[in-house]
Amino acid sequence: MPMKENKYDNPGFFEAYGNMMRSRKGLEGAGEWHTLKKLLPDFKGKRVLDLGCGYGWHCRYAAENGAVSVAGLDLSIKMLEKARSLTSDPRIQYKNTAMEDFECSPGSFDVVISSLAIHYISDFDGLCKKVNAILSIQGVFVFSVEHPIFTAYGNQDWIYSPTGEKLHWPIDNYFHEGRRTTLFLEQEVIKYHRTMETYMNGLLRNGFGITGFAEPVPDEEMLAKYPEWKEELRRPMMLIISGTKSGTA
Amino acid sequence: MPMKENKYDNPGFFEAYGNMMRSRKGLEGAGEWHTLKKLLPDFKGKRVLDLGCGYGWHCRYAAENGAVSVAGLDLSIKMLEKARSLTSDPRIQYKNTAMEDFECSPGSFDVVISSLAIHYISDFDGLCKKVNAILSIQGVFVFSVEHPIFTAYGNQDWIYSPTGEKLHWPIDNYFHEGRRTTLFLEQEVIKYHRTMETYMNGLLRNGFGITGFAEPVPDEEMLAKYPEWKEELRRPMMLIISGTKSGTA
Repeated sequence: MPMKENKYDNPGFFEAYGNMMRSRKGLEGAGEWHTLKKLLPDFKGKRVLDLGCGYGWHCRYAAENGAVSVAGLDLSIKMLEKARSLTSDPRIQYKNTAMEDFECSPGSFDVVISSLAIHYISDFDGLCKKVNAILSIQGVFVFSVEHPIFTAYGNQDWIYSPTGEKLHWPIDNYFHEGRRTTLFLEQEVIKYHRTMETYMNGLLRNGFGITGFAEPVPDEEMLAKYPEWKEELRRPMMLIISGTKSGTA
Repeated sequence: MPMKENKYDNPGFFEAYGNMMRSRKGLEGAGEWHTLKKLLPDFKGKRVLDLGCGYGWHCRYAAENGAVSVAGLDLSIKMLEKARSLTSDPRIQYKNTAMEDFECSPGSFDVVISSLAIHYISDFDGLCKKVNAILSIQGVFVFSVEHPIFTAYGNQDWIYSPTGEKLHWPIDNYFHEGRRTTLFLEQEVIKYHRTMETYMNGLLRNGFGITGFAEPVPDEEMLAKYPEWKEELRRPMMLIISGTKSGTA
């Protein structure tokens, strides 16, 4: 099995990530949070699993909103150390495991969430099958990923004019799914491009009904505060989908 | 109300359209047909409506596959003349009406199909509401449209190198939905760009469950026969979605 990539334990990368607004300010510092929040189910009385939990912002949100138990998984030991340092809530358990390798009994969770982590794994269909199995009936799977338009070309950057103006966003190799090497916080990071069809059919084929779909953009307030975010209206960066378990995979 | 655009009754345009492979060869000449076909429901005993029926290829397919009645709507008189000349099947009725203006009783149809026509109308949400009302319970709505990636930038063309090489497909103004003026068969044609979220939520909000989703590409046989179609793997041109009426709008 190939080594699962984990740049987050690289000290320089971890530090740079810590300086991003979404790390410093948490959920309110993330441009997509106001949209993701609307697609989350009521957490009251629910058993929640967060795939790729990072600093644990979403785990704490779930616990604060009534979840009875929350499991946060992450591949990065440093991220989990930070997550643990931010809470002493006994309902939250963090575990250092890749989401593909996590094992638990069928029906162990009522809600599975994942924020901007699934584009790091290669097998989305396999993940959907696994999530379906560990969810209770009518259980909910909500995730955000980088948008296929954002991941297709590969280098995740604009096309510039000779004078440095952002001309447009490039698309190529859309139907050639798989590894893309891109720069994130000055480090080479491996991500996986998938088509929109692969995301949708991964859910539909594995026993989920589609219950929510969003291409989040910063809201008016954020655009007023950070005018440079207006470029987010030029191409979608993220995709959020929620599915409800309607049958078995 | 603005005049609904209908380039198809322009003689030069109609002739050029008639020379396209999809017009000369029908369904088998359309690169997406092998995918669309799989998303169509069983037509046996069904009342079918085709929005923007053109030459009537899909209407005839529905009738040949057991539909009890088929209504084909189109804004173009010339298209309907051609459609009528191609069949004398008494189950098929053609009507010269814009899909936005069509009136009929609730529950009048079991299947509504539309092939590459809905990107000509501005109000998708309104259309979904209307289609939901005219469908019977568990009725199916299947449509193909130009893909948001194809319609976003506007001119529907590649970015070329100085030597004429196709470098990549441009994306811009993705979240600015609405009119785009593009060249099709050497004529200016008005189309409407919508985000993927608008397509999905138009269905979800108006009483449809998503039952199928495809970004069609030519199959191996077509790629062997028409090697120039390989560029269709570089960016998606079309989107096909099927929804099943699960409630009312």
